[in-house]
Amino acid sequence: MGTSTEKPLVAIVMGSANDWEVMQQAARVLQDFGVTCDARAISAHRSPELLEAYINDMMAQGVCCFIAGAGGAAHLAGVVASKTMLPVLGVPMPSKYLQGMDSLLSTVQMPKGIPVATFAIGEAGAANAGLFAVAMLAMIDAPLAQKLADFRRKQAEMIAATTLPTLG
Amino acid sequence: MGTSTEKPLVAIVMGSANDWEVMQQAARVLQDFGVTCDARAISAHRSPELLEAYINDMMAQGVCCFIAGAGGAAHLAGVVASKTMLPVLGVPMPSKYLQGMDSLLSTVQMPKGIPVATFAIGEAGAANAGLFAVAMLAMIDAPLAQKLADFRRKQAEMIAATTLPTLG
Amino acid sequence: MGTSTEKPLVAIVMGSANDWEVMQQAARVLQDFGVTCDARAISAHRSPELLEAYINDMMAQGVCCFIAGAGGAAHLAGVVASKTMLPVLGVPMPSKYLQGMDSLLSTVQMPKGIPVATFAIGEAGAANAGLFAVAMLAMIDAPLAQKLADFRRKQAEMIAATTLPTLG
Amino acid sequence: MGTSTEKPLVAIVMGSANDWEVMQQAARVLQDFGVTCDARAISAHRSPELLEAYINDMMAQGVCCFIAGAGGAAHLAGVVASKTMLPVLGVPMPSKYLQGMDSLLSTVQMPKGIPVATFAIGEAGAANAGLFAVAMLAMIDAPLAQKLADFRRKQAEMIAATTLPTLG
Amino acid sequence: MGTSTEKPLVAIVMGSANDWEVMQQAARVLQDFGVTCDARAISAHRSPELLEAYINDMMAQGVCCFIAGAGGAAHLAGVVASKTMLPVLGVPMPSKYLQGMDSLLSTVQMPKGIPVATFAIGEAGAANAGLFAVAMLAMIDAPLAQKLADFRRKQAEMIAATTLPTLG
Amino acid sequence: MGTSTEKPLVAIVMGSANDWEVMQQAARVLQDFGVTCDARAISAHRSPELLEAYINDMMAQGVCCFIAGAGGAAHLAGVVASKTMLPVLGVPMPSKYLQGMDSLLSTVQMPKGIPVATFAIGEAGAANAGLFAVAMLAMIDAPLAQKLADFRRKQAEMIAATTLPTLG
Amino acid sequence: MGTSTEKPLVAIVMGSANDWEVMQQAARVLQDFGVTCDARAISAHRSPELLEAYINDMMAQGVCCFIAGAGGAAHLAGVVASKTMLPVLGVPMPSKYLQGMDSLLSTVQMPKGIPVATFAIGEAGAANAGLFAVAMLAMIDAPLAQKLADFRRKQAEMIAATTLPTLG
Amino acid sequence: MGTSTEKPLVAIVMGSANDWEVMQQAARVLQDFGVTCDARAISAHRSPELLEAYINDMMAQGVCCFIAGAGGAAHLAGVVASKTMLPVLGVPMPSKYLQGMDSLLSTVQMPKGIPVATFAIGEAGAANAGLFAVAMLAMIDAPLAQKLADFRRKQAEMIAATTLPTLG
Repeated sequence: MGTSTEKPLVAIVMGSANDWEVMQQAARVLQDFGVTCDARAISAHRSPELLEAYINDMMAQGVCCFIAGAGGAAHLAGVVASKTMLPVLGVPMPSKYLQGMDSLLSTVQMPKGIPVATFAIGEAGAANAGLFAVAMLAMIDAPLAQKLADFRRKQAEMIAATTLPTLG
Repeated sequence: MGTSTEKPLVAIVMGSANDWEVMQQAARVLQDFGVTCDARAISAHRSPELLEAYINDMMAQGVCCFIAGAGGAAHLAGVVASKTMLPVLGVPMPSKYLQGMDSLLSTVQMPKGIPVATFAIGEAGAANAGLFAVAMLAMIDAPLAQKLADFRRKQAEMIAATTLPTLG
Repeated sequence: MGTSTEKPLVAIVMGSANDWEVMQQAARVLQDFGVTCDARAISAHRSPELLEAYINDMMAQGVCCFIAGAGGAAHLAGVVASKTMLPVLGVPMPSKYLQGMDSLLSTVQMPKGIPVATFAIGEAGAANAGLFAVAMLAMIDAPLAQKLADFRRKQAEMIAATTLPTLG
Repeated sequence: MGTSTEKPLVAIVMGSANDWEVMQQAARVLQDFGVTCDARAISAHRSPELLEAYINDMMAQGVCCFIAGAGGAAHLAGVVASKTMLPVLGVPMPSKYLQGMDSLLSTVQMPKGIPVATFAIGEAGAANAGLFAVAMLAMIDAPLAQKLADFRRKQAEMIAATTLPTLG
Repeated sequence: MGTSTEKPLVAIVMGSANDWEVMQQAARVLQDFGVTCDARAISAHRSPELLEAYINDMMAQGVCCFIAGAGGAAHLAGVVASKTMLPVLGVPMPSKYLQGMDSLLSTVQMPKGIPVATFAIGEAGAANAGLFAVAMLAMIDAPLAQKLADFRRKQAEMIAATTLPTLG
Repeated sequence: MGTSTEKPLVAIVMGSANDWEVMQQAARVLQDFGVTCDARAISAHRSPELLEAYINDMMAQGVCCFIAGAGGAAHLAGVVASKTMLPVLGVPMPSKYLQGMDSLLSTVQMPKGIPVATFAIGEAGAANAGLFAVAMLAMIDAPLAQKLADFRRKQAEMIAATTLPTLG
Repeated sequence: MGTSTEKPLVAIVMGSANDWEVMQQAARVLQDFGVTCDARAISAHRSPELLEAYINDMMAQGVCCFIAGAGGAAHLAGVVASKTMLPVLGVPMPSKYLQGMDSLLSTVQMPKGIPVATFAIGEAGAANAGLFAVAMLAMIDAPLAQKLADFRRKQAEMIAATTLPTLG
Repeated sequence: MGTSTEKPLVAIVMGSANDWEVMQQAARVLQDFGVTCDARAISAHRSPELLEAYINDMMAQGVCCFIAGAGGAAHLAGVVASKTMLPVLGVPMPSKYLQGMDSLLSTVQMPKGIPVATFAIGEAGAANAGLFAVAMLAMIDAPLAQKLADFRRKQAEMIAATTLPTLG
């Protein structure tokens, strides 16, 4: 998936096509903000050469950061971070038996020297990785910063307008 | 602590002065890369007004991102993220009884809409938050990008030069 | 939701309208005891100003305590506690992947100086927060104390009357 | 220990005399606020009759609430709550092998109908239970409310005055 | 439920009638071995007097041991053990959010001096508590020991006779 | 170690001689009650034949139950239970890195059909296994039941006599 | 199940016939690679003699390794490893309440001296145990090594060919 | 470290030189059995090219398997397994704050297709990885099989000869 014919600013990579249901939350946020992205399912373990080629290709195309989502022994984000100096955002996928606790620990507990910025397990984390990428880009893109400010304001307004049902 | 008389590019905030032993790893990395920073101990719970004033002051001074370290019910990074649109990096402090597992979960499990980029528990996480801030700034600062490349190369060379003792 | 046109004695706040299914257990207990309450969904992270305004409004209206329910990196109760000196009761919401363990730790592990009285994860905790609010108010409200005594007695009687089915 | 010859307003009970090192934090807070309290080490499991007698004695003396601290299979707070309608505050003691996670879960996960207001594991939780008792009493004691406001203000001022050491 | 008009040899008590679905496994094992038992749902927290009366009644009727099943902050077995010197077998009930980990820790982590013999979470644990009661009684009841030997032999034979389906 | 030249009533087995520091708590309790016991360090994994021989020898000598303590993947109690129909009491040893949580789960989570009565991690669990063995034997030994009643009474009296130091 | 009339190279044993749904993943991998295997459901706890006989039979038939899958207090792999010097591969079964965390710890945390090579909880672990057995046999079987190389290449190619759906 | 001038049969790699204290247990076992090995500290994250070169070099020298030890987000074993078809044995290092639970989950929870045979956290796991490598090699090396049989026998004899101190 390339969400645009333009060069991508963000590369989204995930350990398996099954992760797309969760990771599309990141792509959707970027799309909503008009940030171009590319998304691929590539396993760090089963296709390491493909992963390396993809990272190099994305860097050549000029992406500003990577978002990587994986589950279980979730090495994807760490492997990407070992191959690029660009910021790498990690999203722990919910896992079948341990609910993503394994994914979280194997994404966030990186050793000193190679950081992975980690977000919440699952959909919230994927969306937030997208928002964080927007926030990084907004540091140098005033119109994007304005869009982010609008998003934050609307988000707060929607909550202000929320009413709870009456007790029966 | 202000590591420089120049305006800070990064604001480091921590829940208690006791966290400085860990959080100075972030300050040290920034110092090594010549990135100016400011560091303060401010509790999100015990001094919320001071925290808000500090965030506003730092934004007025033009910081590019916040690094927030806290332990236990570690709300600091989340509270900062609720008050600014700048990227917020969270570092879970090791806690006295639960070893930072409480800090990690209360930093990383943010709801959709307000991201906190979370790093490892303790010293490694603090240093990596500093390195991640450098990586973000390096997106638009070519000399800093070169310094980061040098750091990564030297880091790899040091490992290549490591030898293990012989078995007795 | 305001369960009454009278001034509320208890303010119930929750991180999202989805938490109402659980948190209405608190409202229902208060209603059963004739304790007026107000209930609102306000995110500590996405609408911090609204939250602050709501806390101030409720204090102005004379509430005696707050009940706050949130999930994941559950900062809501802690943020409320940082803004008021009134007793704050926290209810950890069950979370999608970690079953509320993240919510529990980020609610209960508050630092010295700002307490949050925490109850069980989910429905039992919400109902018990309501009962605890009743018990606090009963300290100075003899008829309410009598109602609570009646509730406790009936609760015990119901158990005494319970019979188990015969084994087939 | 009775911290005063006056009648106690708060009863502190703990599972073992070894818990006093932690639980005295609660007593100290109450003492600092001039709230009289009584403190006893009584095991819910090894001396249930003594516990029941103590609870009844304390209620007869007019205490307003109980603070109970215990570790491991920490039933003390729950047993107290089953015998009184007064508010019961539970403090999970750090345990030798599981660091108080067992104490926390067996204190906080009470069934619907009998609440225990639970605080953090260890010293912070003990101190906060004391502060919460003060906050409950402050609902009907204006001078105490003023003392609590002073405490909160000073606590914030101390943080504002904190400076971090310079990096070497 | 009393599984027989004869005096019970074993008393089964559980925290709520909902626990019967699991706890009947214990009753069924006892029934299969011809060991009389009585079963009641009595909450340690909501009906402590009833519990104490039941324990005393069962001891008066001459039971040899208690089996107690409860969930969450599972104090039931511990409370029974504090009131009797007879062997007490504890079964942690699966809990709604923490899957019985809370029940397990609050049943097994008893302090020195008051033991609770704990079995697995849920059905397996309930059945095994029944079998353990049989094993205790078999120490002084030769025909029962023979029945247990038969059960163990048949159990092994059934496994020996198990075949797996062929791979498709 | 055989604590007596008389035939042992209880056999204590542990996975390693290092476990003796903990497991002697069980032996000491039995000694205090005048219950003869035998104690051996035998690994279920490294010396399975020796274990089987020991179990058979102990059964031939007429022991009434086994107490088994092991750590990590703690199979010892389960293996003993698979070889005898006598009651088997399991004590999870504290483990070097996981504090005995691994030992606890691998001792208590036995499948339906082969029970292991499990006690707390470490010293408290070892002592309680000893006390539970006494309670089982007391079912048919009136003088032992009297000793147990005395122990329980003295234990409660000691607590009643405990005083806490005064706050400074 | 014997997947072939030829002598088995690998013996698959599992604690219960219910584990076959998961463990057949191991058998299927072996079948796909043309490695003969035998599969049996035998409980380490309920039928220890049968297990020992099966292990001896399989060794007599010349198997090269064992794959053992069990859940809860999962002693099966460890018991097999205590009876043979052949490589033993352990697969933790997902368990009803603790999701296989108990199975994982009781399989992997073996004491020094008796190794069990442990794989992931559930289906992935079962398949990977099969693949690992293939990799061990491929050390001395060049055609099998070639098949494994083909499998790895095709696995990578399949990933390379994966495309993600377009965002709506 | 190369434990011999002969070509290595086993390659031991660890994430940091600090891991050598634990990982030398693997080297020592191999040395005791006369199995040549090479050992290097190479970080998967900080020096990925060096790691790849080392893996290729070791395969060219004809090693039969890899032993990889790493801590935290422990990707080392998985990365090695993604680059070779030889058996890869993983040893989770104890980690500073989470005691190796993070290392364990990020080593063992590998996805279907790329197995890592995982051993216990720390020293026991390192020694057992060495023993498992010996067991694999013993499949085709009769004298080594004999040595392993001797080791197992002596290990059992040492246990048989262990005596416990007398109770004081």
